[in-house]
Amino acid sequence: LHTRLPAVGTTVFSLMSALASEHGAVNLGQGFPDFACEPALLDHVDAAMRAGHNQYPMMTGVPALRGAIAAKIEAHYGARYDAASEITVTAGATEALTTAILCCVHPGDEVIVIEPAYDSYAPAIALAGGVPVPLAMQLGEQGYSVPWDRLAAAVTPRTRLIVINTPHNPTGSVLRAPDMRALADIVRGSDILILSDEVYEHMVYDGARHESVCRYPELAERSFVVSSFGKTYHVTGWKIGYVAAPAGLMAEFRKVHQYNVFSVNTPMQHGLASYMADPAPYLELPAFYQRKRDLFRDGLKGSRFTMLPADGTYFQCARYEAISALPESEFAQWLTREIKVAAIPVSAFYSQARESGIVRFCFAKKDETLRLALDRLSSL
Amino acid sequence: LHTRLPAVGTTVFSLMSALASEHGAVNLGQGFPDFACEPALLDHVDAAMRAGHNQYPMMTGVPALRGAIAAKIEAHYGARYDAASEITVTAGATEALTTAILCCVHPGDEVIVIEPAYDSYAPAIALAGGVPVPLAMQLGEQGYSVPWDRLAAAVTPRTRLIVINTPHNPTGSVLRAPDMRALADIVRGSDILILSDEVYEHMVYDGARHESVCRYPELAERSFVVSSFGKTYHVTGWKIGYVAAPAGLMAEFRKVHQYNVFSVNTPMQHGLASYMADPAPYLELPAFYQRKRDLFRDGLKGSRFTMLPADGTYFQCARYEAISALPESEFAQWLTREIKVAAIPVSAFYSQARESGIVRFCFAKKDETLRLALDRLSSL
Ligand SMILES: CSCCC(=O)C(=O)O
Ligand SMILES: CSCCC(=O)C(=O)O
Repeated sequence: LHTRLPAVGTTVFSLMSALASEHGAVNLGQGFPDFACEPALLDHVDAAMRAGHNQYPMMTGVPALRGAIAAKIEAHYGARYDAASEITVTAGATEALTTAILCCVHPGDEVIVIEPAYDSYAPAIALAGGVPVPLAMQLGEQGYSVPWDRLAAAVTPRTRLIVINTPHNPTGSVLRAPDMRALADIVRGSDILILSDEVYEHMVYDGARHESVCRYPELAERSFVVSSFGKTYHVTGWKIGYVAAPAGLMAEFRKVHQYNVFSVNTPMQHGLASYMADPAPYLELPAFYQRKRDLFRDGLKGSRFTMLPADGTYFQCARYEAISALPESEFAQWLTREIKVAAIPVSAFYSQARESGIVRFCFAKKDETLRLALDRLSSL
Repeated sequence: LHTRLPAVGTTVFSLMSALASEHGAVNLGQGFPDFACEPALLDHVDAAMRAGHNQYPMMTGVPALRGAIAAKIEAHYGARYDAASEITVTAGATEALTTAILCCVHPGDEVIVIEPAYDSYAPAIALAGGVPVPLAMQLGEQGYSVPWDRLAAAVTPRTRLIVINTPHNPTGSVLRAPDMRALADIVRGSDILILSDEVYEHMVYDGARHESVCRYPELAERSFVVSSFGKTYHVTGWKIGYVAAPAGLMAEFRKVHQYNVFSVNTPMQHGLASYMADPAPYLELPAFYQRKRDLFRDGLKGSRFTMLPADGTYFQCARYEAISALPESEFAQWLTREIKVAAIPVSAFYSQARESGIVRFCFAKKDETLRLALDRLSSL
């Protein structure tokens, strides 16, 4: 069978999770919490099932959930989206990203992808027949940042879409207001669209605010904004995400969504809609994860790892050059096999092999899990 | 925004459901039950959530569920699929169909689609850059059937895939052993693949057996077989489906699935896996729905509708020429507005407008719902 995706293998997250369990390692690789979600969330889903919400929902999502999402976006970012025509519930953020790409990228169109990048963007672009144009972040004293001048230079008449991701996986960096203004300068007057992956929107630390593209009307008018409940509510396996976009873009998104998955699990949507009435889980999240970040960072101070800034997401990147000269992938495997702590090589997030001597740890774990990992890592 | 899917509007199922609720009509349009599923199924899902099965499952599906699916296929069809490499759990049958098409259809490839056809096939082929080649079923005294000689004549060197669907939506016809042999004759020696939509596999009536492509090794070796739990367990809104295919085909399927949705709701998968240990729900289904089919058919005997055979699915097609000369779409709307019973025009399942004077009724409804509809229809 002649493959449609010659470059695709098994995702690094699955590979490292499998290696971690094979070697009994603490899994700080794939990004998911090892603690339970709020039982109240389960109560809401169970109630929805018992109430008989088990048949096809609307293709666009359960109205109560779309309404709750629109209300949340307005409360957090001051942006108004019409729940009927501008919000769609998706089968996780991955479906949202792929569907957004499939609905607007035509064969031969160029899509600028800032690297390191989440590994689903490029295969989705390939499926659409588009051409990914990778643009490397720069890595300085302050950590990773986007070189907007180089991004501007990468724009061509074929550029159809720019994919951004803030808070950023895997680097833990976040875009700030000047970044958003630089992006607006680049796209102004063009017909370039923006796909903004914001699944870590509620994990920004040190008192900073999340710079959603929603906050910037000039950007929002041309953007698909993607988020998900998996990270925010500690249920990465539920696979319920959403997209907000102006009605014109959303109409195209829905054409593809309708025939990609049609709709999304009904009782989970109802359960989330009622649970969302309480904003506390969102509001508490930065403090909750900042404490875990600090626990993890502090615990590594005695080691030879060098911490990069971790301003958002639930990832901490660390340089290991003082410990090993191995390439990232081999170092991550060695760490898993010998030290019994799994991490993700940042090189896996580049389309062309690039070695920076950096691995990514996920700190969305119970304190005792983090302490066990730190026991093992701090002697390095 | 330059559309990727110029031919796509809102699916007829959503339109007719909306019209039905606007006019307070009994909804025999969109295919979904109006009765509750077994409470035991909900208990299993709730138990899975409480047990903490809420994080990312394996990309290919929860192993227990893949194992249960493989065991079910072997028990029913005598076909062996390796649960590790030949079964994948999907975000409903729609994702399975679209992902299968995206993984094997290259731009310019032809895909033979037997019409009337479920409305997701053609847009998925268009997204892949493929060319749908419609092949009309013939309609005779015995109802709808596939003209295999004409299908053979439609094959060209560019034919990559043939989509079949049995039991067939919307006609309620089923393929029989001679059909399967005719199909095998056509594809033998070619590299044509088969996508077999079998979501109504457990709804075949009058003692006949379901002719899954799984039963025919010559076909199975080149087939993606798609099914779903939504129809079988009366939970169409759960959106959990699956694909069985030989390992070589499945490897390509998973490349696309991994970056289309990555994985599928964890607690629902666990709940289904434990519920599947009991085969009774499968085994009881034909009798359960055959009784409803007969109730509905018998109830229409006094009317001027002419019943077509209904050998499978939960749909009953009926000619209305003795009642009205309206085109199907207008007749279905009139029926909804004036008679207060919603149905689906079969013309919506053709790529080129075709009027046969036939509408489709869904009889997957409570007896009281069917009786209410019959009260209204039987006077026509
Ligand atoms: C879909 S598995 C990957 C989870 C994740 O977002 C990550 O680890 O980066
Ligand atoms: C996905 S909504 C359509 C449900 C269905 O299968 C049908 O009514 O044919």
